[in-house]
Amino acid sequence: MIISILGTGMVARSLAGRIAALGHQVFMGTRDKATTLDRPLGSQGGPSFASWLQEIATLQLVNLEELPQETELFINATNGSATLSALTKISDRLKGKVLLDIANPLDFSNGMPPTLSICNDDSLGETIQRDFPDCKVVKSLNTMNAHLMVNPILLEGDHSVFMSGNDKEAKEKVKSLLVQFGWQTKNIIDLGDIKTARGSEMLLPIWLRLWGVLNTAEFNFNIVRKD
Amino acid sequence: MIISILGTGMVARSLAGRIAALGHQVFMGTRDKATTLDRPLGSQGGPSFASWLQEIATLQLVNLEELPQETELFINATNGSATLSALTKISDRLKGKVLLDIANPLDFSNGMPPTLSICNDDSLGETIQRDFPDCKVVKSLNTMNAHLMVNPILLEGDHSVFMSGNDKEAKEKVKSLLVQFGWQTKNIIDLGDIKTARGSEMLLPIWLRLWGVLNTAEFNFNIVRKD
Repeated sequence: MIISILGTGMVARSLAGRIAALGHQVFMGTRDKATTLDRPLGSQGGPSFASWLQEIATLQLVNLEELPQETELFINATNGSATLSALTKISDRLKGKVLLDIANPLDFSNGMPPTLSICNDDSLGETIQRDFPDCKVVKSLNTMNAHLMVNPILLEGDHSVFMSGNDKEAKEKVKSLLVQFGWQTKNIIDLGDIKTARGSEMLLPIWLRLWGVLNTAEFNFNIVRKD
Repeated sequence: MIISILGTGMVARSLAGRIAALGHQVFMGTRDKATTLDRPLGSQGGPSFASWLQEIATLQLVNLEELPQETELFINATNGSATLSALTKISDRLKGKVLLDIANPLDFSNGMPPTLSICNDDSLGETIQRDFPDCKVVKSLNTMNAHLMVNPILLEGDHSVFMSGNDKEAKEKVKSLLVQFGWQTKNIIDLGDIKTARGSEMLLPIWLRLWGVLNTAEFNFNIVRKD
C-alpha cells in the first residue's frame, strides 16, 4: 500500500519507520524538503533528518505538493495548529481518499499544560471533515504516545485505541493498519461518527497530567468492562 | 464519621446507601424534604423516596440548611448545574471542611449527548474551590457509574479512580473512604491540584460515547503502565 504521511516530527517518524518496516511504500510530506533534511532530529541537536532517512529504503521525503496521487492512505501527523494549512496544500489529492488524523488541537499559547484550541462542541477531526468534505476522515491513535501507537505490545495486557469516522470502509482500512501495528481487534473501539472525535481529543488534558504524575509517557487507557 | 451528602438522585442514593452500610452516620440534604420524600425513585414511577429511606437506619434526610455542623466530610452529588446554588445554602458550614465533589458540569440544553458548561481552561471543581475558598475541595469518582464508585469490585481486575485537590490531608480523607469502598490504593491516582479536575471532567464526553457503544454503563478507565 502507498501511504503518505504529513509531518516530519517525532510522531511522524515513528509512524513512517514502522509502516515502512511493515513493507509499505511510505512518503513523508513536508513544507520544505531541504530545510527538513538539514534539521537535527532532537531539540538539543543530534543526527540530522537526512541521516535518519537514508537508513530506510522504502521511505521518501517530498514536499507536500509532491505527495503521490496514488496514495491509498494519508496520515495527518502534523501539529494540530498546522494541520489545516498543510492539508490545504494537497486538497486536490484528498478527494475520495482516506485520511487518518492522529493530531490533537493543542494550544500552547497560554503556557503549560496546553489547552485545546477546539473542543466540547467541535473537534479537529470534525473541522477537517467539514473543510475537506470529499475526503474520508478517520480519527484514531491520538490518545497515546507515538511508540505505543505503532507497537502496542510495549505495554502488557489489554489497552484501547479509539476510532471515529463517518465512512465504514475507511474505518476498516485504518483498522487493518492498526492490526498490522499489533492492535488486537477487541481493543479497537469504534466510537461512531466523526463527531465522537470530541471525546478522544478531550482525553488529552488528563493524558498530559498523567504523563507528569506517572513520570513516563508509555501508558495508555484501557476500557475495562465485563466480558 | 458523620458524612453529609448534597443531592438525592440515583448517584447520591448509591453513595448514601453504601456509606451507611459501612457504619457511618449519613445525612442527605435536599432543597425541600417533603417534596423529596414523596417523589418516586424512578423516572417512570416506582416506590417513593420515603420507602427507600426507611430501610436504612443510619441515614437521615434533611433540608440542606439542616445538614449538621459536625459533618466531617461533605459530598457534592447534585447535578453540576445545581451545584453552586446548593453549596451556597450551606456556605457557613463548609469552612475548613473537606468537600468531595463528584459532579460533572453536563449541559443538556443542546440535546444529547450533553456538552460541558465549563471546560478546557476551567472546571467545576476549580469553580467550587474559588467560590468557597475556605473549604477543601477534592474532585474524585466523577469518571464512572454510581455502582462502580462505591463497589469497584463489580469489575474484575485493575481500574482507576482519579483525585484532584489542593489539600493533602483532604485527599487522604477522601482516599480512606475510597479504600473503604474497595478501591486498591495502587488504582487511586492523585493527579495533583484542583486544576487537574479539568482532565477528569473532560473524560465525560468519551465516557458518554462509550456508554452508547458498549451498551452498558458498568465500564471504567484503567491507566495501563509498566510495573
